[in-house]
Amino acid sequence: MSEEMIIGKNPVIEALTSGRSVNKVFVSEHLNANTFKKLQQSAREAGTIVQKVPKSKLDSMSNGNHQGIIAYVASYQYGTMEQIFTLAEEKGEDAFFIILDELEDPHNLGSILRTADATGVHGVIIPKRRSVGLTQAVAKTAAGAMEHVPVVRVTNIANTIDELKEKNIWVVGTEAEATQDYRRLEGSLPIAVVIGNEGKGISRLVRKKCDWTVSLPMSGEVSSLNASVACSLLLYEVYRKRHPLGEM
Amino acid sequence: MSEEMIIGKNPVIEALTSGRSVNKVFVSEHLNANTFKKLQQSAREAGTIVQKVPKSKLDSMSNGNHQGIIAYVASYQYGTMEQIFTLAEEKGEDAFFIILDELEDPHNLGSILRTADATGVHGVIIPKRRSVGLTQAVAKTAAGAMEHVPVVRVTNIANTIDELKEKNIWVVGTEAEATQDYRRLEGSLPIAVVIGNEGKGISRLVRKKCDWTVSLPMSGEVSSLNASVACSLLLYEVYRKRHPLGEM
Repeated sequence: MSEEMIIGKNPVIEALTSGRSVNKVFVSEHLNANTFKKLQQSAREAGTIVQKVPKSKLDSMSNGNHQGIIAYVASYQYGTMEQIFTLAEEKGEDAFFIILDELEDPHNLGSILRTADATGVHGVIIPKRRSVGLTQAVAKTAAGAMEHVPVVRVTNIANTIDELKEKNIWVVGTEAEATQDYRRLEGSLPIAVVIGNEGKGISRLVRKKCDWTVSLPMSGEVSSLNASVACSLLLYEVYRKRHPLGEM
Repeated sequence: MSEEMIIGKNPVIEALTSGRSVNKVFVSEHLNANTFKKLQQSAREAGTIVQKVPKSKLDSMSNGNHQGIIAYVASYQYGTMEQIFTLAEEKGEDAFFIILDELEDPHNLGSILRTADATGVHGVIIPKRRSVGLTQAVAKTAAGAMEHVPVVRVTNIANTIDELKEKNIWVVGTEAEATQDYRRLEGSLPIAVVIGNEGKGISRLVRKKCDWTVSLPMSGEVSSLNASVACSLLLYEVYRKRHPLGEM
């Protein structure tokens, strides 16, 4: 995991309060006392420390205009579409991707990354907007899997699905109304599994782009599973089709 | 969901800060201003309100000695072993239980309850000590499933397993070292699935009591799945054995 520098009052406060992993905050000795106090409070809540340094040090770290505040944060690297295609090729495996259509909860993303690592997924695709990204909370839940499964941010999921289809990848969505049981999933084909938002499910446009949809059988009173659980069941279904047991 | 009354300063503050679902807090008009302020702050953080009432109202609600503070909280009901056996019998199904051996994370318990509801589990067994219990956070993640799947608290999991075995229930643990693939699970027998603590797994004593252990195949770099994901995969495996598809 590498580090990146964040410069200026508002960007640093944003980093401290948004759950990013802030390693250290440097402030000028001449920083306004109120701002310092506020920053120290946010830093304490974020579990990091604020260190006063001469203004000249901040000047040398940046190109000026730092407003007396510079922070170092962990930077989580995103992958590229090209990279995840190459990963599948290099392993000599049919592509196995996940598309997360506006997932919100960092616990779910972290948990999905763990199962993705376990089942041989080559990459996870998320939209740039309205989606949880790679944060400290995700890293914590992922228990190391974030370092092994590339996450790609794309501008438009629907366009990305078109791109996947051109490369002969089958796109499978999950929805409660689907008549196809997930056990009938053709997991040994090149595949991208689509999981929708925790509350709203898959968006209408993305749904229309799916080659098939499958459902998880549910015999109880509640109408849906946790998103990371639903995703994990599909991932293991693909795994099972690709790695069948001998005689049962 | 029913309500229970909590009486006195410390118990109410404890309820407000521990994540219980507090519906309302009543305080005497004569309450010490500092205590009122502190209480109001805690209540705001807990998303509930504090209402000033005449001391006589508090007297009539309780038997005195309320220290000027009374709260109403949601009370989550636990089930009994007898109840979960009866549930299986009434449905004419082989028993299907989950044993959670010192699970810690409310998100995991909530998520497991959702899958338990979906797969026809008759009851979830947790220890009284060192385990997450039924809290507001669990209720939120469970998305309604907490009302449908009884959770039983027992004093000693190992003793409870002996009791289950006497009733011819097979006890299956999960551990990474198990040689039996989870797909070979005999899910159509009366069964209790054991899931261990998020960090430590199943405790040694409980492990020794299991009739079998199974493992989830993992092809990646990370050594374990999220506990609710691992549990859900096993629950669906039991479901699949009990509700096989026709021709694949």
